[in-house]
Amino acid sequence: MIYRIALDAMGGDDAPQVIIDGAKAAIEKYDDIEITLVGKEAVLSPLKDSHERLKLRYAEDTIEMCDQPVAAVRRKKDASMVVAMNMVRNKEAEAVITAGSTGAMIAGATLIIRRIEGVERPALAPVLPTLARGALLIDCGANVECRPSHLRQFGIMGSIYMENVMGIENPRVGLINNGTEDSKGTDLVKEAHALLKETNINYIGNMESREIMLGGCDVAVTDGFTGNIMMKFAEGMGKAIFSMLKKELMGSFISKIGAMLSKSAFKNMKKRMDYKEYGGALLLGVNGVAVKAHGNSDVRALVNAIGQARTAIAGDIVNKISRKIEEYYCE
Amino acid sequence: MIYRIALDAMGGDDAPQVIIDGAKAAIEKYDDIEITLVGKEAVLSPLKDSHERLKLRYAEDTIEMCDQPVAAVRRKKDASMVVAMNMVRNKEAEAVITAGSTGAMIAGATLIIRRIEGVERPALAPVLPTLARGALLIDCGANVECRPSHLRQFGIMGSIYMENVMGIENPRVGLINNGTEDSKGTDLVKEAHALLKETNINYIGNMESREIMLGGCDVAVTDGFTGNIMMKFAEGMGKAIFSMLKKELMGSFISKIGAMLSKSAFKNMKKRMDYKEYGGALLLGVNGVAVKAHGNSDVRALVNAIGQARTAIAGDIVNKISRKIEEYYCE
Repeated sequence: MIYRIALDAMGGDDAPQVIIDGAKAAIEKYDDIEITLVGKEAVLSPLKDSHERLKLRYAEDTIEMCDQPVAAVRRKKDASMVVAMNMVRNKEAEAVITAGSTGAMIAGATLIIRRIEGVERPALAPVLPTLARGALLIDCGANVECRPSHLRQFGIMGSIYMENVMGIENPRVGLINNGTEDSKGTDLVKEAHALLKETNINYIGNMESREIMLGGCDVAVTDGFTGNIMMKFAEGMGKAIFSMLKKELMGSFISKIGAMLSKSAFKNMKKRMDYKEYGGALLLGVNGVAVKAHGNSDVRALVNAIGQARTAIAGDIVNKISRKIEEYYCE
Repeated sequence: MIYRIALDAMGGDDAPQVIIDGAKAAIEKYDDIEITLVGKEAVLSPLKDSHERLKLRYAEDTIEMCDQPVAAVRRKKDASMVVAMNMVRNKEAEAVITAGSTGAMIAGATLIIRRIEGVERPALAPVLPTLARGALLIDCGANVECRPSHLRQFGIMGSIYMENVMGIENPRVGLINNGTEDSKGTDLVKEAHALLKETNINYIGNMESREIMLGGCDVAVTDGFTGNIMMKFAEGMGKAIFSMLKKELMGSFISKIGAMLSKSAFKNMKKRMDYKEYGGALLLGVNGVAVKAHGNSDVRALVNAIGQARTAIAGDIVNKISRKIEEYYCE
């Protein structure tokens, strides 16, 4: 089977060049994928017939970061992101990837690819690097206001993702809370805790956020507001720590020498902490694989996002979510 | 003027020894404070008359971590934490410090020391280490469910704290949100944003959480649920990064040598990131200075918490909050 991936060539800080280079590299790396680059003819036409598994689809409009997401998706019918999403809707591709506006990606996937029947709210789910094998944070920003039943579905969808895309058996699903006791948390979290307990996923209960990075769970469930703030806080904190460390290391001649000798260790460390290694964030709960790559993705990050889309298609994630949600939806 | 501090000798992982040692060290460091250790007679009586500025107050009960906070504070009239708080209520001390249960500390301070008139909700506010001069996170867990007016007061109280205790002129107050635009956030945050705009503090608007550690604000305002989760996430992330780095550095002979040479840089770095350097978290909004020291505080952390209480008393923080809140309360 060939996995067909629609790739928005115009989205992202370094589009279209990085996207094109990423597509080329991924085609070489994986011989079971076909990529359709979607973007302006003037940009893409030189690539015509460059590779039998690299297709082109012209779309002359683009969605900008400043566009209002829902309005842009509705109005800009010929925007590259919209056209790429329509390919999934029309079964011309199994997956869509964009490094463009997150808001537009969520709006577009929800409006065009549509929700899986029974899914109340699609959720954006990146994998965070941890001391262990990585943890899925769901939701990290698609749903700023949530209901308890949404969090239950996030737990179910996250569990399916970690099992089928990341290959983790019986993933441990925790609910992020300000304490582990049943009595802890907002009303939202208390009710979600009760609902998650009744599912047949491996729900390990309320979890303090300090446990996530230490490897305490495989799926960390939270509302999109809290998740977004956690994820961005982690981003800033990682940056701050490396910046402080660099300054300290450059502070004396001896430690400078030390830093030079330890260079490879720092490099490995940075790589381990780098989101680019983890591809992008899937929007789980829509009728296709939809991947949001980081806005400033480089070629490596793009290739990883494409690999992630490929694994998600191969893992049949959409059907698996659909079947599992049906169990609860038809209660 | 002598600043009088009541110190709960029985609270904390390594109480009473660490608390006693911390009190002794602080008395030596600051010649303008008087500390009253509050705890069991059997524990404290050997210290009798050991220093003219070290007083003792016997209290034979203790509040345990497993106690239900409000019930424990109400029932255990002779618990060390309760007796220490009553000293502030009865004007026998200006400040109380405990390394015991956070829940009991918040309940006790609210019930015994009582709120400043006009303050809707006291808030727990630790200083986070950042690339710049540190940022106050308010609230980090006293109020799991908040109203917009609470967040407005958190901003006001936080601003007063950073100005009068940390010596930062015209502190920049940001509201943690999932984006900077006015339209972003939950209803709570949107309304709080509108309210904060109308204050005369230096409100810089909605702020993404990644900016906090990079020095983007002096006060980061959020509800107690989000704040608690951010703070604990940071704790776990710091631990995880240092643990990963250690493992990487020990991975090869060369990088091990490098790490040895850079030892002092790592030490400085750890110190910079260490909450123990920052003392404890103040519960702002009660009629006295109330400091929660970290449960596993060592002597250094205790001395810093005592120093922080001293600066808060000297900065007349309670009266300053009271006057400022009155401005808004009497609108």
